[in-house]
Amino acid sequence: MAGLFITFEGPEGAGKSTQVRLLAGWLREQGRAVLTTREPGDGGAVGAEIRRLLLHHHDMTPEAEYLLYSADRAEHVRTVLRPALERGEVVLCDRYLDSSLAYQGYGRGLPLGWLRAVAEGATGGLKPHRTFLLDLPPEMGLRRFDGRDRLEREPLEFHRRLREGYLELARLEPGRFVVLDATQSVEAVQQSLRSSLAPML
Amino acid sequence: MAGLFITFEGPEGAGKSTQVRLLAGWLREQGRAVLTTREPGDGGAVGAEIRRLLLHHHDMTPEAEYLLYSADRAEHVRTVLRPALERGEVVLCDRYLDSSLAYQGYGRGLPLGWLRAVAEGATGGLKPHRTFLLDLPPEMGLRRFDGRDRLEREPLEFHRRLREGYLELARLEPGRFVVLDATQSVEAVQQSLRSSLAPML
Repeated sequence: MAGLFITFEGPEGAGKSTQVRLLAGWLREQGRAVLTTREPGDGGAVGAEIRRLLLHHHDMTPEAEYLLYSADRAEHVRTVLRPALERGEVVLCDRYLDSSLAYQGYGRGLPLGWLRAVAEGATGGLKPHRTFLLDLPPEMGLRRFDGRDRLEREPLEFHRRLREGYLELARLEPGRFVVLDATQSVEAVQQSLRSSLAPML
Repeated sequence: MAGLFITFEGPEGAGKSTQVRLLAGWLREQGRAVLTTREPGDGGAVGAEIRRLLLHHHDMTPEAEYLLYSADRAEHVRTVLRPALERGEVVLCDRYLDSSLAYQGYGRGLPLGWLRAVAEGATGGLKPHRTFLLDLPPEMGLRRFDGRDRLEREPLEFHRRLREGYLELARLEPGRFVVLDATQSVEAVQQSLRSSLAPML
């Protein structure tokens, strides 16, 4: 694979989409072909429908929820991510498997072993070259975030487990993860992203 | 679990829904509480939307297809099947996990080990007490069937693998499966179903 697969993780309100946009602009200025994408929803027509389903049904079982995210991911990997990486592009993806491990695993309590077994076939083993975790105390993310998302209604305890889960995932794979303090200014976070990526370009 | 969980498997055109209807009538005449249900689609509002998605998108990847069936199954098990079984009902289910193993495994070539690993969490380990396989040569099923389904467009070779897959699954679990010759008359098949179930009631 000629391309570079970069994912962005963290809670709502951490500023992921802003950072992806700024980073994409910087990479393009340097002449790199860049694809910005996200999960769930950017896996073609099927992905868009799964995203709609996930956003409109708030009472489904955690297992069904995870399997829907995984179906979207399977489609996204094969129709969007792999083709772009094979064309040699830099792919900036807002959320990927680590979101599911953090939200459905640490957050909702589904067993991580099962989540990883499902993911093996869903992703076909595709792993990010680098994952940026935009870390934020749960109280701050919830305050920043405007509440469109159903997750905002989860109790604070859920958001604490989510944060701890993300940090645990980062500790398990220190070579892939870079943890950034998202309470910093947008400019400071962006500067850290660029410094971290520069040697990989 | 006080109830009885009976599933019906086989290709389109084998007569599953007719047999389920006749069997439900017979069981009710004997005073049993019966629930007839099917996969995909009977797992509440989420299941209905997943069914629509599966029927309208013919070009999705096999992995996404299987994960959507599994999401529907996860919802169906927890919101419909388990509650009915806990109420002591006889549940007659038109297609269940064996359909996925036959169609996505033997038919489309996804690895059975992965399918079973996903299914473990999707079903929470819920297995049928009895599975009736309505076996039919592929040529006959396709002739009988009116062609509403996208699977009808698969090459004959796909339907041959599907049949062999079903028969292999039945050989692996002879205590659960009963294989019936679906080229017989509706009445003869129904009689076999009743004879097989009578000792379990």
